[in-house]
Amino acid sequence: MRQAGRYLPEYRAVRRKVDFLTLCKTPDLAAEVTIQPVDRVGVDAAILFSDILVVPEAMGMELSIEEGKGGPRFRVPVRSSEDIARLRVADPSALQFVLDAVRVTQRNLRRRVPLIGFSGSPWTLAAYMVEGAGSGDFRRAKSLLYTHPRVMHGLLEKVSDTVSAYLASQIEAGVDALQIFDTWGGVLCHDEFVEFSLRYMERVVQAIRGSVPVIVFSKDGGGVLREIASIGADVVGLDWKTDIGEARAAIGNRVALQGNLDPVMLLSTPARIEEGVRAILAKFGKGEGHVFNLGHGVLPETPVENALAFVEAVKKFSPEYH
Amino acid sequence: MRQAGRYLPEYRAVRRKVDFLTLCKTPDLAAEVTIQPVDRVGVDAAILFSDILVVPEAMGMELSIEEGKGGPRFRVPVRSSEDIARLRVADPSALQFVLDAVRVTQRNLRRRVPLIGFSGSPWTLAAYMVEGAGSGDFRRAKSLLYTHPRVMHGLLEKVSDTVSAYLASQIEAGVDALQIFDTWGGVLCHDEFVEFSLRYMERVVQAIRGSVPVIVFSKDGGGVLREIASIGADVVGLDWKTDIGEARAAIGNRVALQGNLDPVMLLSTPARIEEGVRAILAKFGKGEGHVFNLGHGVLPETPVENALAFVEAVKKFSPEYH
Repeated sequence: MRQAGRYLPEYRAVRRKVDFLTLCKTPDLAAEVTIQPVDRVGVDAAILFSDILVVPEAMGMELSIEEGKGGPRFRVPVRSSEDIARLRVADPSALQFVLDAVRVTQRNLRRRVPLIGFSGSPWTLAAYMVEGAGSGDFRRAKSLLYTHPRVMHGLLEKVSDTVSAYLASQIEAGVDALQIFDTWGGVLCHDEFVEFSLRYMERVVQAIRGSVPVIVFSKDGGGVLREIASIGADVVGLDWKTDIGEARAAIGNRVALQGNLDPVMLLSTPARIEEGVRAILAKFGKGEGHVFNLGHGVLPETPVENALAFVEAVKKFSPEYH
Repeated sequence: MRQAGRYLPEYRAVRRKVDFLTLCKTPDLAAEVTIQPVDRVGVDAAILFSDILVVPEAMGMELSIEEGKGGPRFRVPVRSSEDIARLRVADPSALQFVLDAVRVTQRNLRRRVPLIGFSGSPWTLAAYMVEGAGSGDFRRAKSLLYTHPRVMHGLLEKVSDTVSAYLASQIEAGVDALQIFDTWGGVLCHDEFVEFSLRYMERVVQAIRGSVPVIVFSKDGGGVLREIASIGADVVGLDWKTDIGEARAAIGNRVALQGNLDPVMLLSTPARIEEGVRAILAKFGKGEGHVFNLGHGVLPETPVENALAFVEAVKKFSPEYH
């Protein structure tokens, strides 16, 4: 999960100098903020600092992020097959700044911890491209999917090809693992999730699997875990709402599970956080195959000492179980 | 689910005369818009037009709804045990305008169809009262719950007592069924959902059950359906994301199921809607115990002819199954 961010004073110091997109596109700075949580809170892996929406931008869409104005936005959303025809399957060289950030990060990390690269899932990117901006329910994207399913499939194919090539190039640049974030899979009904999100994640996983572990995280995916566990990924990420004990019982040891402390719990107290960590360890139970993590990204208002208490509690109590 | 609303020209005509809260508080007008969908799209039941937040207002909070400014808002949110001590367990007479709306609606409906009354669940109301406004993750409310669980329980007890009395008075005023909307139960982890949402819904259900059927709807509740089915309600409402076939398999025939067409599907075409209706009927399968409905309220941009096509499709294809 995103672990660099505004809760860290050293991140805010970097952001005072550059805006969010410039940070994503400046490899030295992206590498710097990628490593900050490793130094500051002692996490066992770094996750590349970037944004999922640089992919649609590389495909030809104009992205703008106005601070404090409701998040990123595409000036001209994709709404028709003509719009889709104008998009290109992006060559990874269009995202050279990400690949450079991977190389700089690995050089500066000096193998202290592994580095995780990532991409948004094809559906999550496509939903954003159609909607044009964030949304509670992505009703425009879903409406297109219901009314013109072939148009949506056409878009998803182009996005999937781009994502597969992008992730393969991240492997080549040196990441040690990859995560696919299906942030908006949870707005779909069961059958549409399978047809429009899962199938395309499967396609990407099948295209890249083999050399590094692949993690698939589908927010609000608690009801489709068995399906997610069957697409060839090595790890299934759980959001905070899923009971990790029930998840393990449901999908057994076919895949490892990642998760899933509620990030809001990091707004409470070190004692409460320790209790929360122990509860999740006990629910997962003994045995291998648990990557402890938050169930979503760190919130900006998280006190640094609480993030630290979280990491320390995981390190302190995990050996009892694994 | 809410079926009166801006997609109906006759609703917009009423709203041109009065603002939202005035509409809720004027029994003749509330009754008028409650009955509109019965007349216009031919639904088999009316659901009372009101807002869940009139309950916290009756408990002493100042509610404001500014049009186009991000929904309802409490001027002074509840954040401490002192704030909670100042709230009153509201006597239903403080919500007399709702009870009057029930009576006027029943008089004007002349028993053509049953009337469903409702309330927000205690957790959903409490979350709003602490947060002060709508939120993607209700992090303030959840943060209070993690840090000061007893304070949150204190609030939930007061809200539950108010809700129980309020729903009992709706029965007395003449509703034919009741629904409890747990709109924000889905932001909680499994154990916190049980402790802070489900237990209080159970308390309310136990207080009012017996004379009319009670429906419990917990949005994003797909992972906790067995738990929801065990609190004594007659019907469990499903959001659009849950597979109704899997839900029936999981909770059997202990309760009836309500749902669950995706409201976004009503933005597509009559043919697609018919296909969607048939798919849900087939998933539920033969037998009794299915209340066909949307999986959430009707969206404002829904074409009236599509809402009509939905109701007609349900009436046309249901007899094959029930």
